[in-house]
Amino acid sequence: MHAITIPEPGGPEALVWDEVPDPEPGEGEVLIEVAASAVNRADLLQRQGFYDPPPGASPYPGLECSGRIAALGPGVSGWAVGDEVCALLSGGGYAEKVAVPAGQVLPVPDGLDVRQAAALPEVVCTVWSNVFMIAHLRPGETLLVHGGSSGIGTMAIQLAKAVGAKAAVTAGTKEKLDHCAALGADILINYREQDFVEEIKRATDGAGADVILDIMGAKYLERNVKALAVNGRLAIIGLQGGAKGELNIGALLSKRGAISATTLRARPVDEKAAIVAAVREHVWPLVAAGHVRPVVDREMPMSDAAVGHRVLEESGHVGKVLLVTP
Amino acid sequence: MHAITIPEPGGPEALVWDEVPDPEPGEGEVLIEVAASAVNRADLLQRQGFYDPPPGASPYPGLECSGRIAALGPGVSGWAVGDEVCALLSGGGYAEKVAVPAGQVLPVPDGLDVRQAAALPEVVCTVWSNVFMIAHLRPGETLLVHGGSSGIGTMAIQLAKAVGAKAAVTAGTKEKLDHCAALGADILINYREQDFVEEIKRATDGAGADVILDIMGAKYLERNVKALAVNGRLAIIGLQGGAKGELNIGALLSKRGAISATTLRARPVDEKAAIVAAVREHVWPLVAAGHVRPVVDREMPMSDAAVGHRVLEESGHVGKVLLVTP
Repeated sequence: MHAITIPEPGGPEALVWDEVPDPEPGEGEVLIEVAASAVNRADLLQRQGFYDPPPGASPYPGLECSGRIAALGPGVSGWAVGDEVCALLSGGGYAEKVAVPAGQVLPVPDGLDVRQAAALPEVVCTVWSNVFMIAHLRPGETLLVHGGSSGIGTMAIQLAKAVGAKAAVTAGTKEKLDHCAALGADILINYREQDFVEEIKRATDGAGADVILDIMGAKYLERNVKALAVNGRLAIIGLQGGAKGELNIGALLSKRGAISATTLRARPVDEKAAIVAAVREHVWPLVAAGHVRPVVDREMPMSDAAVGHRVLEESGHVGKVLLVTP
Repeated sequence: MHAITIPEPGGPEALVWDEVPDPEPGEGEVLIEVAASAVNRADLLQRQGFYDPPPGASPYPGLECSGRIAALGPGVSGWAVGDEVCALLSGGGYAEKVAVPAGQVLPVPDGLDVRQAAALPEVVCTVWSNVFMIAHLRPGETLLVHGGSSGIGTMAIQLAKAVGAKAAVTAGTKEKLDHCAALGADILINYREQDFVEEIKRATDGAGADVILDIMGAKYLERNVKALAVNGRLAIIGLQGGAKGELNIGALLSKRGAISATTLRARPVDEKAAIVAAVREHVWPLVAAGHVRPVVDREMPMSDAAVGHRVLEESGHVGKVLLVTP
């Protein structure tokens, strides 16, 4: 098969579409013939040599894919060769075939074509596990999402609205905020022109955000704590603004606040399977009913993955960038 | 009635046993004739002028008491005049009478005398709400408690053991650690002589603590994050080591860790009632069965509250210091 390899870490040109051995499905795994994968920010770090795949994972980038099941490993039940599926991966999505534990596989939701489904696993599992399983966003509460027009952001807006919560977003341009509004975002904050703490307070009668989904880490830590409501929960899933920051524990204490920090990729197989099962139960019906949809910025051939990486690096996208196999 | 008043903030001598007007039970409140109260560290801060009572609370210190119900306010059901009770207070425990919302009242557990019960509400509600309701300590997990011989610490050890978890403690003397061991603590760390991060790792085969109950805040923040296990939860309930500290979000992220920070006193009445109801359901049977008991360092007349404050300031105590009414 072909896959995107990284002979030497570096810029987007480090991604090389090359011939490699086919993967074999192990015990409890299925082999997927990939229709599409999608670009995640973690892939950019992996390409630069800053984010090695966890032990046992494929060496190729790609944290999600869609396609058809080509083979079943020993001990797999509930799936059949030919099923149209999408899957959460520990790596290896940028390839024509990938082996994945069966617990990380989901059917293509009713009403979607198989390629579109590649836009779902990583963002849906990330948002569901953080905003709902960890931070327990409830109907009537307010979710603040930084980077509202990203893949994560566009999914977080839709899921918050689908459960009856308010969605507040930050983004850097009016065009991106317009996209967020079209997806249902109630509170639109241009972080280049406005202070998000002031704006979220103003829009919530001074209360603040009940849950914040954050990708900035240190750079936003102090302001995120200020922006939290009483009993607020800050869920950090990225460190784009640095890893070490001053925490005002006194301010957090006065709000009875909580901070969580997670990544999906490093979770063991059983935790991933639990998240995927929860997503299938709670989110898949919303997708099938049309309340939640994948937001795709553009598609391109997988061999042009470098182009997709440049799109994310320039932050010119809204939603997901798909990489389609030949 | 008499109460401990604070005419001017200051040292222990600022506490004055004086005649004051009786409180009246309001809608939904009961009036308790106080048998005993207990000293909490927050009382020391209030005495020094650093921790004003929340709006609507009694001006006198005292976050818990035991006694007999002397009168019922309008709309109270489930309690009768003469019932022996203890209660979680927003203040006013250092007095001969105190009015408290009925939802914060608990019966004196079977097998305890009414005075001993004053040692329970604050520590049981603090430990249950933080370690179990927020941090969800589970059987087989390891709880690390800083200040294992304090009122909070002695209760946390017993509750952790009662649910089948391991208890690790830090304390500053061998004598205090011996007391912790007698209560069931499995892992004893002398923080003056040992590094608690190293010790907790060594005692858990490198895993770390699943839950940490912390009173130090900033001073321990970095080490607490290091001491956490994967999926670990740090519950901060005090700032004895400062309010602002550097948080290594990257380290927290790599552990999928969480940090919460709460105080009990500032919670609204409905949240306190929910905690008290959970305590009555889950902890009171353990007390009645003898698995969990109040640890009382000493008792003294309430008019000598200054002596009790000095005991806490010198950290010479193990468990609770009770103040008994005449």
